[in-house]
Amino acid sequence: MDATLDLNADLAEGFGTWSLTDDDALLEVVTSANVACGFHAGDPATMRRVCTLAVERGVRIGAQVSYRDLAGFGRRFVDADPDELAADLLYQVGALREFARAAGGEVAYLKPHGALYNAVVHHDDHAGAVVAAAQQAGLPILGLPGSRLLALAAEAGVATHAEAFGDRGYTPEGTLVPRREPGALLADADAVVERARRLAAERVIEAVDGTAIRVEAASLCLHGDSPDAVATARRVAEVLRDAGVTLAAFA
Amino acid sequence: MDATLDLNADLAEGFGTWSLTDDDALLEVVTSANVACGFHAGDPATMRRVCTLAVERGVRIGAQVSYRDLAGFGRRFVDADPDELAADLLYQVGALREFARAAGGEVAYLKPHGALYNAVVHHDDHAGAVVAAAQQAGLPILGLPGSRLLALAAEAGVATHAEAFGDRGYTPEGTLVPRREPGALLADADAVVERARRLAAERVIEAVDGTAIRVEAASLCLHGDSPDAVATARRVAEVLRDAGVTLAAFA
Amino acid sequence: MDATLDLNADLAEGFGTWSLTDDDALLEVVTSANVACGFHAGDPATMRRVCTLAVERGVRIGAQVSYRDLAGFGRRFVDADPDELAADLLYQVGALREFARAAGGEVAYLKPHGALYNAVVHHDDHAGAVVAAAQQAGLPILGLPGSRLLALAAEAGVATHAEAFGDRGYTPEGTLVPRREPGALLADADAVVERARRLAAERVIEAVDGTAIRVEAASLCLHGDSPDAVATARRVAEVLRDAGVTLAAFA
Amino acid sequence: MDATLDLNADLAEGFGTWSLTDDDALLEVVTSANVACGFHAGDPATMRRVCTLAVERGVRIGAQVSYRDLAGFGRRFVDADPDELAADLLYQVGALREFARAAGGEVAYLKPHGALYNAVVHHDDHAGAVVAAAQQAGLPILGLPGSRLLALAAEAGVATHAEAFGDRGYTPEGTLVPRREPGALLADADAVVERARRLAAERVIEAVDGTAIRVEAASLCLHGDSPDAVATARRVAEVLRDAGVTLAAFA
Repeated sequence: MDATLDLNADLAEGFGTWSLTDDDALLEVVTSANVACGFHAGDPATMRRVCTLAVERGVRIGAQVSYRDLAGFGRRFVDADPDELAADLLYQVGALREFARAAGGEVAYLKPHGALYNAVVHHDDHAGAVVAAAQQAGLPILGLPGSRLLALAAEAGVATHAEAFGDRGYTPEGTLVPRREPGALLADADAVVERARRLAAERVIEAVDGTAIRVEAASLCLHGDSPDAVATARRVAEVLRDAGVTLAAFA
Repeated sequence: MDATLDLNADLAEGFGTWSLTDDDALLEVVTSANVACGFHAGDPATMRRVCTLAVERGVRIGAQVSYRDLAGFGRRFVDADPDELAADLLYQVGALREFARAAGGEVAYLKPHGALYNAVVHHDDHAGAVVAAAQQAGLPILGLPGSRLLALAAEAGVATHAEAFGDRGYTPEGTLVPRREPGALLADADAVVERARRLAAERVIEAVDGTAIRVEAASLCLHGDSPDAVATARRVAEVLRDAGVTLAAFA
Repeated sequence: MDATLDLNADLAEGFGTWSLTDDDALLEVVTSANVACGFHAGDPATMRRVCTLAVERGVRIGAQVSYRDLAGFGRRFVDADPDELAADLLYQVGALREFARAAGGEVAYLKPHGALYNAVVHHDDHAGAVVAAAQQAGLPILGLPGSRLLALAAEAGVATHAEAFGDRGYTPEGTLVPRREPGALLADADAVVERARRLAAERVIEAVDGTAIRVEAASLCLHGDSPDAVATARRVAEVLRDAGVTLAAFA
Repeated sequence: MDATLDLNADLAEGFGTWSLTDDDALLEVVTSANVACGFHAGDPATMRRVCTLAVERGVRIGAQVSYRDLAGFGRRFVDADPDELAADLLYQVGALREFARAAGGEVAYLKPHGALYNAVVHHDDHAGAVVAAAQQAGLPILGLPGSRLLALAAEAGVATHAEAFGDRGYTPEGTLVPRREPGALLADADAVVERARRLAAERVIEAVDGTAIRVEAASLCLHGDSPDAVATARRVAEVLRDAGVTLAAFA
C-alpha cells in the first residue's frame, strides 16, 4: 500500500423522491465520489447537488456508469451490444460533466457500476466498450486489479487505477463474491475496519476461504448504502490516518 | 428576412428500435440539427450517429431539450419544479456535448422541444429554467420571437436567435396553434414552400385567420417527421436559394 | 363521522432497490392499502409482496393510480390526453389485479395519486378519464369530497367513497394545500392525532386559517412516508378506537 | 402439420409516437395476436386499441411478455432474479387482461418475447419464472418445441402450444439463429412462403445448413416489423389455405 490512499464511495444513488446514501456525510470522509449518472440511479438534480458539494469539499468527481437498468439498480447483467453500450456510457459521462463543470470542477475518472463492474472482470466485449468510452472521453478508469477491463485499458493506452473493496467478499482469485452468494458482504463494521488496516499495513486482503491475497490498490471503495455506512467510513479513515496513510485522491 | 437564413430540423427522434426521421437525408438539406437528447426521444447510439454525420456535413449541432416524457414524446406539459427542470436540461445538454465532442464538433445552441417549447412562450418559471440552463451551459437559445423565453434570456444576457416555422399554424398573435387544435399543421408541401418564399421575400407569415404577421427570424424550422419531410425540405431549400437567400447556420 | 371508519395509507411506494414506506408495519394498522402500480412507484415484486401481506391481514387492496412519472413520484401535473390517461390508468389497475388475484384477493377500489389526485379536484377532462377507467374496471373511486372527480363519478353511476386526510393542510374551501406551499403538511404527530379525534367526534377538520370545515368521510388517509409514520398511525388508530369508532374497510 | 394451423404475429410493438407494425392490416390475416405489454414496447393506448380490434375480428389475444427493456426492445438478455422476473411477467399479463376484458375478450395465452424467448430455450431459471407466471395467471404457453420452457411447463402441468417461425433461420438443432448472426432472418418473402408451404405439407423446416428438421407446430409465427410484412403474411395465408389448411387459433 502506498503511503497515500484514495477513499471512494458511490454517491447520488437515489432517484427522484428516493434516496439511498447520506451524500453530505460521506462527502466529508471520502476523497473521490463515484457519482451515479442516471442509468441505475442518480436523477439530474441530485447529480448537480453532489457535484456542487464535492467541489466545495475538494472531493474528486468520477462518473459511475452503468447498464440502463433503473428497476434493477444496475445490478443485473444486460447483454448489450458493445457499440450501443459505449454510447450509453458516453451519454452518462457527458451528463455528469455538465454538472461538474457548472460547479467549477471536472469529471476525473470513470468507474463501472454493479453488474457492469462484475461483467468487465471477464467479459471482453463489454470491457472493450468501457475502454472505448473512457478513451473517447479522455478519462482514466478505476477498476478491479486483475480484471480484463484494466488489461484492455492498458493495451489501449488508457490510464487505470486499481481499487480494493472495504466491505465486499473476495474469492481466492481476487474477484468479488457475487452479491447473490454467501460472503458477498463483510459481516460488520469491525471486519471492514480491520481489512482497511491490514491492507494499509501489509497490502493483503483475506478472501472468503481465508486465503491472504496480495492487493495493490490506489483507492479503497467504501459502500454508502448500508445503515452505518457513514460511521464505518469515519472509522476506516481514522484507522488509516493512525497507520500513517495520507488520504488523498489518486494522482 | 436576412440574405442569410438557417434551416433547422429536429433529428435523432427515434428511440432504440424505433425511428421517426430520415436523419441522413435531412442532414443533406438543413444547416442546423436539433438533436434529441434522450428525454423525449434520442437514444445514445442515435445521438452519436447524428453528431458524427452532422460534423461530416458541416451541419451545426443544437441540443433539443425536453421534459422527461418518452411516452408522450415531450408533447405534454409537465409541471416540473423549475430547479429540477434546469437540472434535467443541463443533463441533456451535457450528454449531447459528449457525442458532439467525440465527433470533433460542439453543441452550438439549445432549443426547447414540444410542450416545453410551447410552455416557455408564456410560462415564466419554465422559461427561467431554460434560460438558467443555457446560461450555465454557455449556449445561445433558439426560440420563438415574442416569447417570454427570448425576453428573459435577453434580460439575463443570454444570446438568442429567433426562428419561424415552415409547417406550423400561427395565431394572429404570432404564437403556434396548439397541436390538438385545427390548423396546427399546414395542409401540404406547397403551402410550406410558399410560406418559406414569402417569409424570405417579405418577412411575413400568414396566420390561420389570414392575418399577415411580420416575422424576423434567423432560422426556419422544418419538421422531419412527416412522410414527405425530406422532399419538402429540399423544395424549401431550392425556393430560398432561387430567391437569393444564402442557407447557412446563424452566426 | 360514522361509527365505522376506514384507515387508508399509500403502500408499495418504493421502486427496485429504493423503499419509502414500512409496508409491513402499516399493514398492521390500516384497513385499506392504496397500492402503487408502477407509474409513480411500485415495482412488480413489491406490488406482489404487499398484495400477499394485505390478503393475509384482511386489509382491503386499492389501486393507487398515477400519471406516468417515476422521476417526479407522480407529484407533477402531466397534461395528458384524457383518452391516453384513461388507458394508462386501466393498465395500472390491471397489473395490480393480477397480484391481488394471485394472492387470493381482489382490487376493491381506485384512488388517484399525487398530482392526479389534486388535478381531478377541478380538472374535468382528467377527472373524466379517472371515472372512465373506474367504470371500465368496475371499481368504486376513493377521493376528495367536493371534488369534480366524485361529482362526475356520481353522474356516471360510479360508486364513490369520500376520504379525509390526517396530515395534509386544508384550505377553507376543503381542498388540500399544495405541497409546495406552507401548511401543506401538519407539523407533528400530535396535530394528526388531534385531527383524527376531532373528525371522529365532530366531523370537523380545521383549515390552515383556523376555519372549521365540516367533512363527511368514509375513510381517513394517513401518509406512510414520514419518519414516524407508523407510530403516528398507531396513535391515530388508538384514539379512534378509544372514541368508539370501529376501524374497518368502507363497505 | 395438423389440418388446422394458427397464424400468430407480434402486434402493438410501438411506443407512444413510435409505431412498428401495421396492426390493422395484420389483424386481418393472423388468428392470434401476441400483444406487447409495455416492457419492450406497447403503450397502454395502443394495447387497448389492438385488443379492441382483435376482439372485433375474432383474433385471439396473447400476452407477449418481455424483460423490462424499452431501450433494447427486449432483445437483450437481462440477468434478472427469477422471482422478480415472474413478478414482471404477471404485471404485464394483468395489464393486458384489463384491456382484453374491457374489449369483451380475454387473454388466452402467454408468449415470451425476444431475448426472453431465446433465453428460456435453455435457461432453466428464467424458463421456470415464465412457467410460474403462466401458472399463476392460469394461461397456456406458446413457445419453441424442444425448449426447456415447454419441458418445464409440461412438468408443472401448464398447457403448452408449439410454434414454428416463418422467417427466422433455424439451426440444425431446431433452435433459432441468434439475431446478430448471419442467417437469422430469411432473405425474402418467397422463402417464407415456401417454408410455410413445406411445413404444412411435410412438417419439415430447412435449417441454415440445409438440414431438414421435423417440426410439429400448432402455430406459425410471422413477424410484423418488416417492410413487406403484411403482403408476406397474406401470401402465407393464401398458400396454406390452398394446401387445405384451416387457419384458426389453436384450441
